[in-house]
Amino acid sequence: MQKELPSVEFLTNGQDYFLPSVSLDNVIFGFHENELKVLLLQPKLKKEWVLPGGFIFKDEEIDDAAARILKTRTGLNNIFLQQFRVFGGTKRSRGTVMRQLLQTTGTKITNNHWLLQRFITIGYYALVAYDKVNPHPDEFSNECAWWDINKIPELLFDHQQIVEEALQAMRLQLNYQPIGYNLLPKEFTLKNLQSIYETILGRKLDRSNFNRKILGYGILEKKEKQYSGGAHKAPFLYSFSKKTYFKALKNGLDKDF
Amino acid sequence: MQKELPSVEFLTNGQDYFLPSVSLDNVIFGFHENELKVLLLQPKLKKEWVLPGGFIFKDEEIDDAAARILKTRTGLNNIFLQQFRVFGGTKRSRGTVMRQLLQTTGTKITNNHWLLQRFITIGYYALVAYDKVNPHPDEFSNECAWWDINKIPELLFDHQQIVEEALQAMRLQLNYQPIGYNLLPKEFTLKNLQSIYETILGRKLDRSNFNRKILGYGILEKKEKQYSGGAHKAPFLYSFSKKTYFKALKNGLDKDF
Repeated sequence: MQKELPSVEFLTNGQDYFLPSVSLDNVIFGFHENELKVLLLQPKLKKEWVLPGGFIFKDEEIDDAAARILKTRTGLNNIFLQQFRVFGGTKRSRGTVMRQLLQTTGTKITNNHWLLQRFITIGYYALVAYDKVNPHPDEFSNECAWWDINKIPELLFDHQQIVEEALQAMRLQLNYQPIGYNLLPKEFTLKNLQSIYETILGRKLDRSNFNRKILGYGILEKKEKQYSGGAHKAPFLYSFSKKTYFKALKNGLDKDF
Repeated sequence: MQKELPSVEFLTNGQDYFLPSVSLDNVIFGFHENELKVLLLQPKLKKEWVLPGGFIFKDEEIDDAAARILKTRTGLNNIFLQQFRVFGGTKRSRGTVMRQLLQTTGTKITNNHWLLQRFITIGYYALVAYDKVNPHPDEFSNECAWWDINKIPELLFDHQQIVEEALQAMRLQLNYQPIGYNLLPKEFTLKNLQSIYETILGRKLDRSNFNRKILGYGILEKKEKQYSGGAHKAPFLYSFSKKTYFKALKNGLDKDF
């Protein structure tokens, strides 16, 4: 993994290290007590927030850059980051905001400063287990924190749109890829899994419909029922079938057509 | 729409016009007599083929660039191009191939020639009505032609991978977005629509399953049955409901969850 640049070098000579015109933004969703969170940074001296993003080294694969940036902000390794869209509006990265941000660092700002050029940004998202993350701000930010998806603060640039489209992409993804592997303990009930789907979709689901569909995908293994000892019927436990889960992640879930 | 550059200006001073580091490749699928075709170009003096692609003007939206490149190669306007992935491998655009291609044009080649730098490419795909297309090569190519998806020739760079991933993305898309609007006459039978799905998926589908699912999406309107006069039962005709079709294109098809 590439090392991050020292900040003075980053601010003054970034153009020597990074691919021009291209940035990358990670939308990191966290699942916590049936709530969906998103990880945001607050740049110094600003009241608005931004997504954790960065740039691609000239000899770095773009997926590796996304993973490096995720690790820097969260400490997380080996998370499956899903590239979902390029945001390429001509006006998305121009204007006075980046100039203001640069001013807070005391950088000498020329009109052709590399950070003032047009950037298209590649959006990635990941759904991570909230309590495994240790959010920490970089030196250009006050704070790095989780925000409830329904209560996010004002965001800079087009980052509000990027969050919305990441959420929409993740909701569509539920229809053709499995989800939940890194969010649940090894054994879980169908109700646990249904909660994840409900949290992402932001609405309640019919239980028998959900069970029928999810079992139909063939990605779950039913465990031997354990003696519960209680008066109530204990629910069956399941685990993900590693083989079929990752096959479905690659090829899509089985469909009627 | 931006005008294409004259070729000498393109080859020698392209860096003054285009966003650095970023190219764009269109995978144009054509539907014809229940076969799936893909539109390819053969560069001069090469036996291999490439996808129709290009670059993004410094003040051009990326979606507009995709549409401009599509129009230049096919004459088609108003086609919905679906951005599906960025290909960002560090070695994808390097090597000797671009240098050879440049040599065929007689361009003076320096080591820092803009076309010899690293490019990431944004992949778009579209599914178009084959017989509305008039393929024509640009001045750097011998030929622009449709190829059967199962018999495509050897491709340069990572274009084989781009075609494969476009096809996979289109197949996944069938599960959450409607398809077929620009491929069928105003009124059609369910069997006509099933043929499109079968062609994209490359396999036969069960008819009653297909009918149940496609009608369940609520994107079709049943037409009044017309007197057929024949001995056989005429099939019902349908048309797309413009309102629900484009809503589903935007928000995804209705699902059980």
